[in-house]
Amino acid sequence: MEQVFPYEHLHAFTQDVFTKMGCSPEEAALATTVLLSADLRGIDSHGVARLSGYIRLWEAGRINARPDIRIVHETPSTAVVDGDSGLGLVIAPFAMKVALEKARTAGTGWVSVRNSNHFGIAGYHAMMALEHDMIGMAMTNASPLVAPTFATERMLGTNPIAVAIPAGQQPAFVADFATTTAANGKLEILQRKEQEAPLGWIQDKQGVPSTNPNELKSGGALLPLGGDREHGSHKGYCLGAIVDIFSAVFSGANYGPWAPPFVSFLPLPPDPVGKGLGHFFGAMRVDAFRPADEFKSHMDNWIGRFRNAATVKGQEKVLIPGDPEREMEAERRQSGIPLLAPVVKDLGEIAMKFKIDF
Amino acid sequence: MEQVFPYEHLHAFTQDVFTKMGCSPEEAALATTVLLSADLRGIDSHGVARLSGYIRLWEAGRINARPDIRIVHETPSTAVVDGDSGLGLVIAPFAMKVALEKARTAGTGWVSVRNSNHFGIAGYHAMMALEHDMIGMAMTNASPLVAPTFATERMLGTNPIAVAIPAGQQPAFVADFATTTAANGKLEILQRKEQEAPLGWIQDKQGVPSTNPNELKSGGALLPLGGDREHGSHKGYCLGAIVDIFSAVFSGANYGPWAPPFVSFLPLPPDPVGKGLGHFFGAMRVDAFRPADEFKSHMDNWIGRFRNAATVKGQEKVLIPGDPEREMEAERRQSGIPLLAPVVKDLGEIAMKFKIDF
Repeated sequence: MEQVFPYEHLHAFTQDVFTKMGCSPEEAALATTVLLSADLRGIDSHGVARLSGYIRLWEAGRINARPDIRIVHETPSTAVVDGDSGLGLVIAPFAMKVALEKARTAGTGWVSVRNSNHFGIAGYHAMMALEHDMIGMAMTNASPLVAPTFATERMLGTNPIAVAIPAGQQPAFVADFATTTAANGKLEILQRKEQEAPLGWIQDKQGVPSTNPNELKSGGALLPLGGDREHGSHKGYCLGAIVDIFSAVFSGANYGPWAPPFVSFLPLPPDPVGKGLGHFFGAMRVDAFRPADEFKSHMDNWIGRFRNAATVKGQEKVLIPGDPEREMEAERRQSGIPLLAPVVKDLGEIAMKFKIDF
Repeated sequence: MEQVFPYEHLHAFTQDVFTKMGCSPEEAALATTVLLSADLRGIDSHGVARLSGYIRLWEAGRINARPDIRIVHETPSTAVVDGDSGLGLVIAPFAMKVALEKARTAGTGWVSVRNSNHFGIAGYHAMMALEHDMIGMAMTNASPLVAPTFATERMLGTNPIAVAIPAGQQPAFVADFATTTAANGKLEILQRKEQEAPLGWIQDKQGVPSTNPNELKSGGALLPLGGDREHGSHKGYCLGAIVDIFSAVFSGANYGPWAPPFVSFLPLPPDPVGKGLGHFFGAMRVDAFRPADEFKSHMDNWIGRFRNAATVKGQEKVLIPGDPEREMEAERRQSGIPLLAPVVKDLGEIAMKFKIDF
């Protein structure tokens, strides 16, 4: 069912594809590194498996391979970036660099982005801050799949939030999570395996909680983190809404149910309220608050204390956000990235289309 | 069981109490307004019911009624404030004003606070931004009551996050929520009524999910938003951790299990890693991103569209964050604030202690 490919092999191939789409060599390389960071970190739904989706959007004229990405508004600590319909994989690192630059002079930098597309995993962009002794934040809105508490309509995307915090001796704290109970990728795995979903992940089109993972394809919806009102789904709804507003209402992108779908076979909403998808990035210099060494040594203490907290039976340790992804990356850089048969088939078809080797 | 008091009556009484504790007239008035904003908004656990708790901390020498609150470090968009062990109810508005002032010149302002105490409801401080056409954010760490995913130890507080976003014709969007499945106040209600808690709110001291609300008093713990791993409790744990780090590791306050308890009968941890409790505040000028009128008219559109989304059977409308609290405040300003008998008794004892009328 699975075939394993060396990272370098997938990188060379994907870079060739983006180049054939018309990206500049630098942007093709960058887009590839961002996309494949998902495969390395074990978030398989967001990696090379999505390459064909990006290509179809490009074929439909919804992705511009040679965008003029630029700052359209700024203050000492903020900016708005227009992505000119480019690949989010390229627009997001541009915007994050603006945030880092603002933070260098103003202490913090905050950048909202319009006219973009899917940007890969939020964690990649947040982690760009770490080598500068800064905290990085990244969030994005996305295709509407999530029903707010009490609603049957899909009004929000899975709207992820990533926060990366540097430490000293310890590896960095890297949180990266969808604001739903479960990410869409996890539901897709259950659909493929024909298994039931836990209650609290989805509802059917009438808004009744369901365990059938296929309800999402029949008008159902993913549920906000919390699952139902009694378990705090209104909090997950708040989080998804905040991500939507910071990403799209700040920047002039499409928000809520107007967010453009990732799949090219769904039409764009006929009455857009902005341009493309929106993202939001933040960078905070650690030494804008206290000396960096002091901060990092307390982060080491924080991480050590939490990792060694007493555990429930059957668990060896308390995880620090980012632990599983870092371990996965180390393993996959060494022994390669496993791809499911349908993904391998997909990549073979892409190779034929662009007349390149796979 | 309940007695209703006019807001003005409770305000005059509470202000007298803070004055007797030694607060300046201005700070006594401010602390009262912040504290009672919880009662007005229906968050009864955080309002005048806590007055005796603040008094006991003051009697134990853990609250300084005449603090020298000051900025100890700053950049164009950031500051760290030392609260000098004062009332969080006074320190928090001071720090939020610093954030607003920074935002005026730098576009955004971010303030981390150390050496503080409980600050009432986070929403009050976040909402201070609204009249300036800014987005306000407030968060705080708190007494450790929450077990991270896979842990049996209480490592985090209920660490709330509030975000207030201005609109035009519509009332503002005001989210204010604990990063646990349920706030501690809701558990206390079940304890009083001798009712069971839903699964997903708490675990016992072995880390086994429980429906007994009294487990929290026997070494059990509140659970992060999500409840268990399968329902995303690691995401709630991430949120609580981020609040803890921004509030306390940035500022030099006590973090994680070192956060000082609110109740005076529990000793302070013997090996503090910082000073007092920590908070974190943010202010973002809306026009640091796009013209304020444009932003607010899109917020009106956002709010209108979400409020009118199709609902599940039995629900009339989708709530916008802040709707229930705003309606409660309008009602209680009109018809008064209902207090439970034990709270009334408590206030009577406070009146006797300070020889003032209740």
